[in-house]
Amino acid sequence: MTIAEELLAANAEYAASFDSGALTKEPARHVAVVACMDARLDVFAMLGLDLGECHVIRNAGGAVTDDAIRSITVSQRFLNTTEIVLVHHTDCGMLTFPEERVKQEIQAETGVRPAFSFDGFSDAEADVRQSMARIEHSPFLLHRSVTGFVYDVDTGRLNLVEP
Amino acid sequence: MTIAEELLAANAEYAASFDSGALTKEPARHVAVVACMDARLDVFAMLGLDLGECHVIRNAGGAVTDDAIRSITVSQRFLNTTEIVLVHHTDCGMLTFPEERVKQEIQAETGVRPAFSFDGFSDAEADVRQSMARIEHSPFLLHRSVTGFVYDVDTGRLNLVEP
Repeated sequence: MTIAEELLAANAEYAASFDSGALTKEPARHVAVVACMDARLDVFAMLGLDLGECHVIRNAGGAVTDDAIRSITVSQRFLNTTEIVLVHHTDCGMLTFPEERVKQEIQAETGVRPAFSFDGFSDAEADVRQSMARIEHSPFLLHRSVTGFVYDVDTGRLNLVEP
Repeated sequence: MTIAEELLAANAEYAASFDSGALTKEPARHVAVVACMDARLDVFAMLGLDLGECHVIRNAGGAVTDDAIRSITVSQRFLNTTEIVLVHHTDCGMLTFPEERVKQEIQAETGVRPAFSFDGFSDAEADVRQSMARIEHSPFLLHRSVTGFVYDVDTGRLNLVEP
């Protein structure tokens, strides 16, 4: 079985009992979540949000990158979200990320030095505050109300980051 | 109740019955999913994947942007994923996105023209192929095995996009 066949077989079961029900394009709770891509994060369950209630933007680290700003801009201007929730977490792959060494290795291997920053950080809480600052200073957002958390992957607990 | 208080109250319930169990930092199925941020997408359920099995990268449109490439690079080089799965969907906010008009409006309002492309598209299937091409041509990835789908938000069904 190829991965496509496997995923399609699982999806056929999902679709068989699927009910699009009350789901709307516009997030019902007007929230955009920005979270890390980490495999252990159940974004809906940890926040007590349901499908249909929020946009979910995820990347390595859960950083407010330019691309996250692009997504939040679309979310606010076209789909009427007004609140931003940030979720970083303990034991993140981006903690103590060796930016310079990785770039040198990639360049040695491929001949191309990544033009982007990997956006690693040494302190999850401090990085949530950095992400808050990026939101505060982006000219493109309509709403800057932001709540930031560090999620503990061992306990399932969210710790609020004071701005 | 502030939104922080509300989310923390919901999270206290989640954490009370939380079991980090077999969850590992390295995705157990070695898959990185790139999907749209749309509120209606239950990424795990639609693909039959469980928490802990895949990285989940999400943005407006599910496009393979430079930031998605950054995330996949981290995913493959540091957390050993080898497969990429793309999920675009019907009724996407990025379908027929009026790029030029939006940029003009934002510039008129803020004085700043976004330097990024909003990455809208007119055909979800064609855009999945564009994203596949970006993966094919990125120098930074170690693995380019990619499976692409368009998810139907009305039926819950994934439609395979042939490369």
